[in-house]
This record gives sequence, structure tokens and C-alpha cells, in this order.
Amino acid sequence: MPTIAIIGLGLIGTSMGLAIKNSQLKDITIIGHEVHRPTAVRSKKRGAVDKVERYLPAAVENPHMVILATPVMAIQAVFREIAPHLKPGTIITDTASTKTAVMQWAEEILPRSVPFVGGHPMAGKTDAGPDAAEATLFQNAVYCLTPNKNADALSVDAVEGLTKAIGAHPYFIDPGEHDGYVAGISHLPIAISAALVQATSKSPSWSELSKLASSGFRDVSRLALGDPIMNHDIFVTNRTAISHWIGELVTELNSIQELLDEIPDEANDKAIQTMFRDVWEKRLNWMTGADAQENPLIELPSTAESLARSLAGEWVVRKLDDLDPFAEKSTRPDKPVQKRKGWLRR
Amino acid sequence: MPTIAIIGLGLIGTSMGLAIKNSQLKDITIIGHEVHRPTAVRSKKRGAVDKVERYLPAAVENPHMVILATPVMAIQAVFREIAPHLKPGTIITDTASTKTAVMQWAEEILPRSVPFVGGHPMAGKTDAGPDAAEATLFQNAVYCLTPNKNADALSVDAVEGLTKAIGAHPYFIDPGEHDGYVAGISHLPIAISAALVQATSKSPSWSELSKLASSGFRDVSRLALGDPIMNHDIFVTNRTAISHWIGELVTELNSIQELLDEIPDEANDKAIQTMFRDVWEKRLNWMTGADAQENPLIELPSTAESLARSLAGEWVVRKLDDLDPFAEKSTRPDKPVQKRKGWLRR
Repeated sequence: MPTIAIIGLGLIGTSMGLAIKNSQLKDITIIGHEVHRPTAVRSKKRGAVDKVERYLPAAVENPHMVILATPVMAIQAVFREIAPHLKPGTIITDTASTKTAVMQWAEEILPRSVPFVGGHPMAGKTDAGPDAAEATLFQNAVYCLTPNKNADALSVDAVEGLTKAIGAHPYFIDPGEHDGYVAGISHLPIAISAALVQATSKSPSWSELSKLASSGFRDVSRLALGDPIMNHDIFVTNRTAISHWIGELVTELNSIQELLDEIPDEANDKAIQTMFRDVWEKRLNWMTGADAQENPLIELPSTAESLARSLAGEWVVRKLDDLDPFAEKSTRPDKPVQKRKGWLRR
Repeated sequence: MPTIAIIGLGLIGTSMGLAIKNSQLKDITIIGHEVHRPTAVRSKKRGAVDKVERYLPAAVENPHMVILATPVMAIQAVFREIAPHLKPGTIITDTASTKTAVMQWAEEILPRSVPFVGGHPMAGKTDAGPDAAEATLFQNAVYCLTPNKNADALSVDAVEGLTKAIGAHPYFIDPGEHDGYVAGISHLPIAISAALVQATSKSPSWSELSKLASSGFRDVSRLALGDPIMNHDIFVTNRTAISHWIGELVTELNSIQELLDEIPDEANDKAIQTMFRDVWEKRLNWMTGADAQENPLIELPSTAESLARSLAGEWVVRKLDDLDPFAEKSTRPDKPVQKRKGWLRR
């Protein structure tokens, strides 16, 4: 029977376990490891893992695949602790929000005999911990994958198959490009929520402001509720890209402020109208997926896809069992890793 | 039978009608007016109004109270059109997001015989129009009230009673103070959503970014989906205060950017940790209402409150019927209008 170890049983680790148990891979044995005892107990009670192993080296010695679902900064230490205990060929993957630092640590610390396929599911929620976990958290989510040079095609296919089995859409991407992109659409919003909370709560009128604050404030400030340790880890491992995007945002805020500070006239009025019409249209297009239509990444579930997913799932089991090294390859594109740095251009 | 006119049957106007019909005031006749025919038809079908009156002067001639639920900038024109047709004593109120400009228009245009009680329910949603309307939209919402000098105590009590009848919490406030506060917690978030959509969608990698964007981007950019006309109207009638708050936000964003740009060391790491812990705690306190505990404005529903609300509702009916001018006064505070300008201080 194939075995997977999940290291870190918070929202993502527990959701991963539940998603696997809810998939064609449900017969895989899942070993969980978690430094915080009550979290491990809750995760096991939710049914995300078959067994909790308190000693980290023992948790990774035998599994065919190890999934690291800890905050980013913990990954380096976990790599150090598990490296001497990994059998050659054990597939390692992670779920961290930044990839450049993780890839570098993998290069420095993990043995060459161990393939590493970085991973980042574009899914999450504000609530943390195993009680917030959902088996469907990754359904239709884009799942970024960044294999390293030790990762052979079969290992990459196994991780890709896992992402498909849990309902996600694998997306191969260069680690630097990944960090640049997510800095804009994922980390910048965190900085924004933090800045909004700081700006308003520092006001001497905060006690009145807080009473009047409603759904708009609630949504735009929501990400300030994210786990402070996770947010810290994301920011210190993606400094340059997040700083770049804060600069872009401030440029836009300054433009809006200039419109407000101008002497009102017809042209100024028109410019404010145009701005709100423009962002309304862009946000609507994003929501309806119009911008992604040209090269659709997010496919709607279909019978064909269900079949492919099912095959991919079976394939992972076979792979993990080392029963069939010649199994059909899944549909990974020929050139998975693109080297564009478009997010830095303007 | 008392009659209320609602001018503008979008999300707020239709929700207001539904909320009244769902309250102790359900027997009040509601006349609706709306420039956009299909919107009027939908609103009537939802049951928000008893009758649609296409000719604006006719809609306001007989009702005891007129509620303006149009975008801010339309209010000036509506005032001009209805002013000659209002009977002395007709109570006028509105639901606009900014109050200074509206109070000035009321002063300039409405007859002195007509009491005006500005209103702003702190409730809303992204979806617009009568189909998105909800009878419970104002439940537990803070409802700002700004009476003008023509508004006698009985007129003010009637509007206050209406807000209580629909489940809201009336909050008397100076119009300038109102605009300063909502600029921070309501209009600044709109500017933020707009700036985030602009910054990311201008990137040459937007087609990739848009695929990776997930729940964080969705929530922080949500307000860009607000009605462009309404957002324009809010911004041109609250320029100074919104510009001030954008400045405050940019200061905070610059601080975060400086932390990212510093050479990483222990102190820098600690500062980033502290920042995320700080905003997490503040945002959590806001959500749990800890900041409002000292002087609680938002009370939990209780039997006592239901009773008070019921009495207030009956009172409005009596008032509107002009049956009992000596009816019990509701619980408006002695000093409703405060003149603090704290939001400008730092």
C-alpha cells in the first residue's frame, strides 16, 4: 500500500489529507506529523490522516511521498531534520506561498537522490487550523508546480497526478515568475489589508470609525486576519517582488488622490467617471474569466476531465506502488517552465 | 392611512420598501418613483412598493414622508424638481453615502416649511438593483442621521422611528464628521479596490496574473464592482476627506515597503512580525466588537429592544397619521450632534 506523509496539519495539511481521502487515492495510507499536539489530534479526528507520528524522522522514513504543509520559514528547518532520513526516490513536495527560497533550500539541503517538486495551491481561507479544513478546498484551484533538477518525469507526474486527483489544475511555472505573480495578486492584497487596518486604527476617532465600519471595510481588511507567522514568512521570502507591487499600487493611489485634489471641472469629472467605469469593467471581466478566455487555464469539469483525473489518480497509486514504471504519461505540457519576467515590466 | 414615497428603487430603495413592509409599519402605503422603467417594474414585483408613480411631482405631493434613495449627485436635481410640490411639514430624508453636499442642497433648495433629516444606512452589497434587495439589509446596521435646522423634534423622531422599525441603530452625527469618518472606513476601501485593479491589470502579465488570482484578490478588489456612477458621486462629493485618507494609507504602505527594502536583520524581522501581529489583533478586535465595548453602539437584539422597536414603529404610524402629537418620545440621546473633527487629527 502506498504511503504519503503530511508534515504540518493546519488548514492546508488537513485539507490535503481530507481531499486525498475523498479522491481516487483514498486507499493511500496517510501519516501526519504536527508540532502542536492538539492540532494533530483535531486533524486525526477530522479523518485527514490515518496515523499521527510525533517523531519527524520516523514520519518521513517510509512514505513514497512527503508533503510539507508548514509555514514557509519552517521548511528550511524541516529539510535539515528530514534530509538524513529520506530514502532515495522519496518524492518531496510543499505547499508554501513563495517558491524561490524553498527551491534554494531544497538545492542546498536535500540529497540529490531525492526529487523535489515545489507546489503552491492557489486556495485558502481566513480561518486557520484543522477545524477550518475542507476536502473541497482545492477543487478548481490553480496549483502551481516548480520541479527542481533532481525531479525526474515520473516524480513530476506523480505530484501532478496528486493535484488532479484532489480536483486542482496543475500549472507549471518558474519559481521566480511565480513569486513575482503571486506578489501582485496574493501578497499585495495582504499588505493592503494590513495598511488599511493601521491607517484607520491609528486615528484618534477609531472608536467611532470602528462602529460605522461595514461590509466594505470588512472585505478589504479581511487578510489582516491571516496567520501573522505565515504572513511574516511570506513577506521575508518575497521582499523584492512585494515591494515592487506596493510601489505600483501607491502610483495608482496617488493618481486617484490627484484627481480628487484637482479643481473640479468637466474634464476632472469625466476622468473620475472613466476611472470607476474602467475598474468596474476590468473587475467584472476577471470575475467572468473573460481575460483568461484566450488561453483558458481553468477548465470547467467535464466527463473527459473526470476520466483524465481518474486515470491520473490511478497512475499515482501505481507509481507510488512502483508497480508500473511505463504507465501512460499525463498531459503535462512539453515546456512546463516558462522564463518570462513580465511582472517586472511596465 | 399614512403614506411614504421612495424615490429611486435600486438596491437601497427597494430594500427600504421591503423592510418597511416586513415591519410594524407594514400597513403604510408606499408610492415608488424610478426613472428606469424596468427597475420600477421589478421593485413593484418584489413587493417593495404598493404603486409606481411615473411623474415625480405627483409622487411627492401627498405622502407624509419622502425617502430619496438615488445616487448622491441626483439628489440636487430631485430637490429642485420636488421643492415646489411639497406640502409644508412633509418629512424629507435620504440614504446617500455623503452628507455635507446633501445638507447644503437641502438648505439652498428645499422650502423652510419642509423638515429634512439626512440619513445614511451603513449597509450595502456589491450587487445592485431591486433583485439584490433584501428586507433584512438594515438589520443591526448603524443608520447615520443628520437633521437640518428645519427639522423639528417630531420629524426627527419619525425618521428615527423608521430606522428602528427596519431593525437599524440610529446614530446622530454632524454631517462633516460623518463624511470624514465614512471616507476612512467606506470610501478609502473603494479607492483601494480601484487602485488594486488598476495596478494589476496594467501589468503586461495580467493574463497570467488573472488566472492565479484567488480569494484574497477577489475580496480586496470587490468594491471595484460597485456601481461606477454611485462611486463617482461619492468621490466628487467627499474629495478632501477621501484624499486625506488616501494619504494616510500611502504612509502605511510606504512603511511596509521600507521594512521590505531594509537589509534583513533581527530587528527588521521583529518589526515585520510585530506589524502582522498588530494588525491581526486590531482586525480581530474590530470583528468581535471589542473596540466598541466601552461605549457600545451596536446592541445585540433583545426582548427589551424588540419592544422598544415595536413602540417606535407604532409611534411612527401615529405620527404620520397626525393622530397623537403628544406621543411618547423615543430614546434619542440629549446631545445627538457631536462636533468632533477627530478624523483629521493624527
